[in-house]
Amino acid sequence: MIRRRGQGAPRPWQLLALSLVLPPALWAAGGDSPLPDLLLVIAAMLAAGKLLGELAERLGLPSVLGELVAGLLLGPSLLGIVPTGTAPGADMVAVLAELGVIMLLFEVGLETDLKQMAKVGGAALAVAIVGVTVPFALGYGYWAHLPHPIMGDGGDIATVAIFIGAALTATSVGITARVLGDLGAMETPEARIILGAAVIDDIIGLVILSVASGIAAGSAVTAAGVATTFAVAVGFLVAVVMLGNILMPRLADRVSRMRARGMVVALSLAFALALAAFAAKVGSALIIGAFAAGLVLKGTRHFHTVEEQVKPVAAVLAPIFFVNVGAAANLGMLDPRQPESGGLLLLAGTLTLLAIVGKVVAGWAAPWVPFRRLAVGVGMVPRGEVGLIFADAGRQAGLLSGATFSAVLMMVMATTFLAPVGLKLIFSGRGRAT
Amino acid sequence: MIRRRGQGAPRPWQLLALSLVLPPALWAAGGDSPLPDLLLVIAAMLAAGKLLGELAERLGLPSVLGELVAGLLLGPSLLGIVPTGTAPGADMVAVLAELGVIMLLFEVGLETDLKQMAKVGGAALAVAIVGVTVPFALGYGYWAHLPHPIMGDGGDIATVAIFIGAALTATSVGITARVLGDLGAMETPEARIILGAAVIDDIIGLVILSVASGIAAGSAVTAAGVATTFAVAVGFLVAVVMLGNILMPRLADRVSRMRARGMVVALSLAFALALAAFAAKVGSALIIGAFAAGLVLKGTRHFHTVEEQVKPVAAVLAPIFFVNVGAAANLGMLDPRQPESGGLLLLAGTLTLLAIVGKVVAGWAAPWVPFRRLAVGVGMVPRGEVGLIFADAGRQAGLLSGATFSAVLMMVMATTFLAPVGLKLIFSGRGRAT
Repeated sequence: MIRRRGQGAPRPWQLLALSLVLPPALWAAGGDSPLPDLLLVIAAMLAAGKLLGELAERLGLPSVLGELVAGLLLGPSLLGIVPTGTAPGADMVAVLAELGVIMLLFEVGLETDLKQMAKVGGAALAVAIVGVTVPFALGYGYWAHLPHPIMGDGGDIATVAIFIGAALTATSVGITARVLGDLGAMETPEARIILGAAVIDDIIGLVILSVASGIAAGSAVTAAGVATTFAVAVGFLVAVVMLGNILMPRLADRVSRMRARGMVVALSLAFALALAAFAAKVGSALIIGAFAAGLVLKGTRHFHTVEEQVKPVAAVLAPIFFVNVGAAANLGMLDPRQPESGGLLLLAGTLTLLAIVGKVVAGWAAPWVPFRRLAVGVGMVPRGEVGLIFADAGRQAGLLSGATFSAVLMMVMATTFLAPVGLKLIFSGRGRAT
Repeated sequence: MIRRRGQGAPRPWQLLALSLVLPPALWAAGGDSPLPDLLLVIAAMLAAGKLLGELAERLGLPSVLGELVAGLLLGPSLLGIVPTGTAPGADMVAVLAELGVIMLLFEVGLETDLKQMAKVGGAALAVAIVGVTVPFALGYGYWAHLPHPIMGDGGDIATVAIFIGAALTATSVGITARVLGDLGAMETPEARIILGAAVIDDIIGLVILSVASGIAAGSAVTAAGVATTFAVAVGFLVAVVMLGNILMPRLADRVSRMRARGMVVALSLAFALALAAFAAKVGSALIIGAFAAGLVLKGTRHFHTVEEQVKPVAAVLAPIFFVNVGAAANLGMLDPRQPESGGLLLLAGTLTLLAIVGKVVAGWAAPWVPFRRLAVGVGMVPRGEVGLIFADAGRQAGLLSGATFSAVLMMVMATTFLAPVGLKLIFSGRGRAT
């Protein structure tokens, strides 16, 4: 029975089998001692998330899909390992997940090259603006003005419509960059436009999230209120980045001379956490602060050290966020015997359609520059992390019901699944013209 | 007023000023929104801990002393920034601190070279055994049989005496190794004996902690009960390390072939957390499991990758533990107007004396090998991390009162402060003979 094939990487079925067996085995070891049980839950989330993430990458898909599927598996609708709602430990997992989001956006900030972006310039900006406004308009218009399944959401229809629209605006830089890299297409004009536009989308998306969070927190949906929140978010970003670019290089030089071990990573993190909290205090979103912290540290000579040390911390905390988001979805509603199941599928399908159409048309936003419109449009489709952050914020604010949240999550997963497949077809295809 | 001195490292007074100003400034930004406030607390703990840690290193002292002082500063007796007891957020900080201890012991395990230790062999073992039994006997005997200030502890006198004795047994490998390295004395026979004995002490200490935790959890102090807990702890360590050394090398090879980013660190951590929880479940201590996980991964070809990736995570979480421990001390009791203050100082002084005497005599434990007895004895004195873990476990179990905990903390700090000073005097001294 011993088949020697050397020390190869595990086969996909082995990954699947392990991630199905390991978490329940860990869980079965649990009992009613709070701390060890919490540790087992975190271990199960990390193991299942990473193993299914690996499986997804083997299948040519972004690993975030695997982490979400791990959440679905470990969530209350299937295995019930991840505590949600008021279950003991749920608040601890939620805090770790929030730290994961902060690390994620901190990392995105560290990887965002504002100078590089300025070069792609006009075309990327045009694509980004169309790629934000069209999906937002489609999502908002559909929810506010067209008939759709009623899902028992917690806010008035206009507020929920803003969240739906906002969740459609994001573009995942990470996923697209990874797929383009895998295809060896990183140096094409299309890739540079997609990545530039995706970063601008992230920034616009974060600002929209601030506005949406303000509304969720109770500010009225008035033009003046929206304008104020918008101004605060943009002002915060601009002020922090400008001030940071003046003060941080010297400060970072000094910190890099210190001797105590782990100084750089601990102080960088303290900076990101403080800016995140500060952003929330001035009426913007936590993740705007974390993103700004990354942008500021990117401007110092020491950012490679920071990035290298922050990556392991993010690699541990980010999966907790994605698995936790997956766990919040209610798969039970998809059961055809449930009265809501039809409406949920219809809703998820419609949102996915709007999400794809809204981004693909963005490919045609800069007619004065020649590039493959369809490639750019499809490259903008994956919603990934940022879409999930929107959906999660809406759910936590009590605006999106479990069903609506699940539909948005399905939309995010579908776009994240379809875009890499589409990009591969396009970039391995023949033509270079539109 | 502009004095240019290049981009040097910050001066000690700047470090002190920053760590006095920064946390209150962060705190003042707080309000009553739970998550941002928690982030500010964590940021303040990291910033103050690291800056005062750096200050300590500049003064030739271990950085852990600076982190403890940061805790005293941020704790309820002075600034009141770190939430303790039932204050909102205290439970979250406590969980992060526990994750910090687990990471710390995981790292100690990763740095423990069992083969290297076997070489120093007999002398190290003799020093370790004497260095554990004499301090334990002194601490236990003093508490159980001699008059001492009454501190309102929560357990019967024998149980508390076991914790006091146990807190005196630990030796901090990390601190001694660092000081010997700074002195360029790492290759002396004394250094090898000290480090070997310190590791054995850690292992024995962990086993004692298991026994003590079992007693704290309610098992009676019977010879049979102690023997069982002892057997479980030793059995767990031996079984995990043996099984791990058979299974882990192949498993680690496979994991190292996976492509998803952050795989190694996330799965290593999941392993450490699961083993920690598992150790607690079978009736041993969390940190025994974390230590065993480190020992097992040390045995694979990939441990350098693991160590490199685990370090940043530990560098972020470990200071949270030390600052939190410092914050648990009650400085108010030292106020001379307090009736308890005299007793507290007397107790702390006595414990420090016992701690030093108990370890210094260990230098004479292996008369058949020639080495500088005093150097080895003094090298064993610092209690550091492991002593703190003991004290904290006793406090959390409700056995040690706030005053007794504070006295033990002072003993740990005093030994950690005195040992580097003593080692420097001895190693820069003349003779090589006893």
